[in-house]
Amino acid sequence: MEQSHGLLIILSGPSGAGKGTLCQELLRQLPDLKYSVSMTTRSSRPGEVDGIHYFFREKAEFEALINGDELLEWAQFCDNYYGTPRFAVEQAIQAGQDVILEIEIQGALQVKKRFPQGVFTFIVPPSMDVLAERIHKRGTESEEVIQKRLATAIQELEYVSEYDYVVINDEVPAAVDKLKSILVAEKCRVKRKPFVFKGEAI
Amino acid sequence: MEQSHGLLIILSGPSGAGKGTLCQELLRQLPDLKYSVSMTTRSSRPGEVDGIHYFFREKAEFEALINGDELLEWAQFCDNYYGTPRFAVEQAIQAGQDVILEIEIQGALQVKKRFPQGVFTFIVPPSMDVLAERIHKRGTESEEVIQKRLATAIQELEYVSEYDYVVINDEVPAAVDKLKSILVAEKCRVKRKPFVFKGEAI
Repeated sequence: MEQSHGLLIILSGPSGAGKGTLCQELLRQLPDLKYSVSMTTRSSRPGEVDGIHYFFREKAEFEALINGDELLEWAQFCDNYYGTPRFAVEQAIQAGQDVILEIEIQGALQVKKRFPQGVFTFIVPPSMDVLAERIHKRGTESEEVIQKRLATAIQELEYVSEYDYVVINDEVPAAVDKLKSILVAEKCRVKRKPFVFKGEAI
Repeated sequence: MEQSHGLLIILSGPSGAGKGTLCQELLRQLPDLKYSVSMTTRSSRPGEVDGIHYFFREKAEFEALINGDELLEWAQFCDNYYGTPRFAVEQAIQAGQDVILEIEIQGALQVKKRFPQGVFTFIVPPSMDVLAERIHKRGTESEEVIQKRLATAIQELEYVSEYDYVVINDEVPAAVDKLKSILVAEKCRVKRKPFVFKGEAI
């Protein structure tokens, strides 16, 4: 009754939902969980390191990877590309390792088409006010960009129906506990078990 | 984003899997979880109390309830009837209370037809040897009955494919933690959420 493949956990949701914080905390608490580093064409923010937080790449290079089908998903968001290198994720999953993807909604929907057995989790803020506050607090973008992000976030909430799970990110520890429970539960799902019972050893 | 209905958790599996122990431990740890008392025509074992462990009823009375469609499920097992009164379960679920059913496999499959949104969990022993040992340990039945139970249990393992989750009952605390995680995860499932996002309050 061993699980042959790892789980691919997709943490997604609108900008400002706090999925990045939840992802970091999960990785801290679950050392065996592998973070899939995304690739992006956006500029790095203060403190972000290439290869750790993102692979920061030029537009031309990114587009070449799209054309070569070397990305598990990619999306354009606020005039930048975001994507996930395909090979590293597939290799880890097949070796039985759990992988977490923290991605925007457009990317998540693409992963769902290519990898429907992923665990698709939608992170939402507890209220619209909190969402606006969180987006403002980042303080790294102009008011125009902030307003565009907020409008997009509100629209994006409707995509929840495409996901398996929804976790309200009110208090980080509680939300992280829910995500950990989702991982434990998914590992118990019958559809993920490759075993056959025939009156022999289990 | 409130959940309107409680969950119906079905704990099932072959005789000797230890589902009774797990059920008791879950109820101890989760005081809000409501135990659905089953009805049976079998004799009470030492220590069992009518209305607490089972409703012990005569065959004729049980058959009248079957005919009146007043049971959510019923099954015949080792020449006895087992069943679940329908009304109490449905009332609790609709009031938002979580209910746990600990039932035999035949009964669980009936519940699945009537209540497919239940959380169907299959409990299995860690090995065939442990299964045989547990059935022997009960010591309340003749060797013939024990052998019949064991043969049935082995056959019943194949029904796992009808369930949502499978939990190996090796160590009770670990199995209980898995069941608790399954409950938390199921409460996060999008398909169980009655909300609609329309750019308004979440």
